[in-house]
Amino acid sequence: MTPLAVVCVSGGMDSCLTAAIAAGEHRLAFLHANYGQRTEAKELECFRLLAEHFRAERTLVVDFSHLRAIGGSSLTDPAVPVREGPPVPGVIPTSYVPFRNAHLLSAAASWGEALGARAIFVGAVWEDSSGYPDCRPEFYRAFEKAIHAGTRPETDLRIVTPVISLTKAEIVRQGRQLAAPFEKTWSCYQAEAEACGACESCLLRLKGFAEAGAEDPIRYRKRL
Amino acid sequence: MTPLAVVCVSGGMDSCLTAAIAAGEHRLAFLHANYGQRTEAKELECFRLLAEHFRAERTLVVDFSHLRAIGGSSLTDPAVPVREGPPVPGVIPTSYVPFRNAHLLSAAASWGEALGARAIFVGAVWEDSSGYPDCRPEFYRAFEKAIHAGTRPETDLRIVTPVISLTKAEIVRQGRQLAAPFEKTWSCYQAEAEACGACESCLLRLKGFAEAGAEDPIRYRKRL
Repeated sequence: MTPLAVVCVSGGMDSCLTAAIAAGEHRLAFLHANYGQRTEAKELECFRLLAEHFRAERTLVVDFSHLRAIGGSSLTDPAVPVREGPPVPGVIPTSYVPFRNAHLLSAAASWGEALGARAIFVGAVWEDSSGYPDCRPEFYRAFEKAIHAGTRPETDLRIVTPVISLTKAEIVRQGRQLAAPFEKTWSCYQAEAEACGACESCLLRLKGFAEAGAEDPIRYRKRL
Repeated sequence: MTPLAVVCVSGGMDSCLTAAIAAGEHRLAFLHANYGQRTEAKELECFRLLAEHFRAERTLVVDFSHLRAIGGSSLTDPAVPVREGPPVPGVIPTSYVPFRNAHLLSAAASWGEALGARAIFVGAVWEDSSGYPDCRPEFYRAFEKAIHAGTRPETDLRIVTPVISLTKAEIVRQGRQLAAPFEKTWSCYQAEAEACGACESCLLRLKGFAEAGAEDPIRYRKRL
């Protein structure tokens, strides 16, 4: 029987390509986290569209509203402004939510253990990313060891991060090869009807499409 | 300045002694998780009493209701019965919540990073415990490495498990030496006004007090 994989799907481009890769060899259980981020309504809409597109057998939306209580990020705390402009090397951006991906992996591992899944797919990007410490490859390797140490002996969950060393341009190119539905994704850190085109995340996305020589299928309020 | 520690306080004896140990050298931030367990009302009451007793500077109650959606445990799924009788060596009990302690440590690490804490105290017990895989010492060592790999470079959070190798009798004895307020704790897996005296957790607790030659200050419906 085809093995089951838990795929963490934020609703952005990176998790869209990750889902397309996982779909090649797995049945799919799609996991989405709501952590009080500004853009949750948009992200959840994209999650639902992607789950339908990839025919996920199961979906689970987990509520991490405690991350809002913990704060410390422009994504969860309205008092912290969204920074505009490109990422600054060596500077962790204001949008970093302290240790957020550990919460996501914990939910993926608990659900994966309960379902008997064999893998957790996460669309973390490190090389060409915003510099969040919980996107580093060594974090995923360390967390995989924690899963092995802290679950039943028969539980065997790998963490797979297939896009972690790709640039945004490579994500665009590989996504187009796999017919990943980028029109059903959302990247912007602002919560408007159209993507702002100015925040760090929009700039990274637009640069990726430009470098890949492709047209981004979503709409923008403005393009710098 | 005295360093700050996040202390995970369930409201049971083990976390009560852990808090008493942490209080010796730290300012305290008390963290409690509600994960839809049968006994949450009792546990939360004890958490509040312990926070007051130990003069915690901060308290945070996080809601892990997604653990109920994930299920797979008699603590979170009413369809799974609470097993009576002593633990069976080598058998993971029905009360095991898949990878639960990873969720707790993730919240402790996120909060600890936001607060600038230096340590996370957890009252996990392995030697004389129920055999949950997420109580094993190697799980805590592995998770500490994941915290170092996945947080800001300046974040320096140790995981301290001061009671992990103690028997329940040793916990009773050491708690009495430190004047730990065991009368403000709850261990029973049933949610009644008085502890049932028959579930695995009650039996472990009562055996601990008996072996320590001490009287348990809480009330029981029956004692086997």
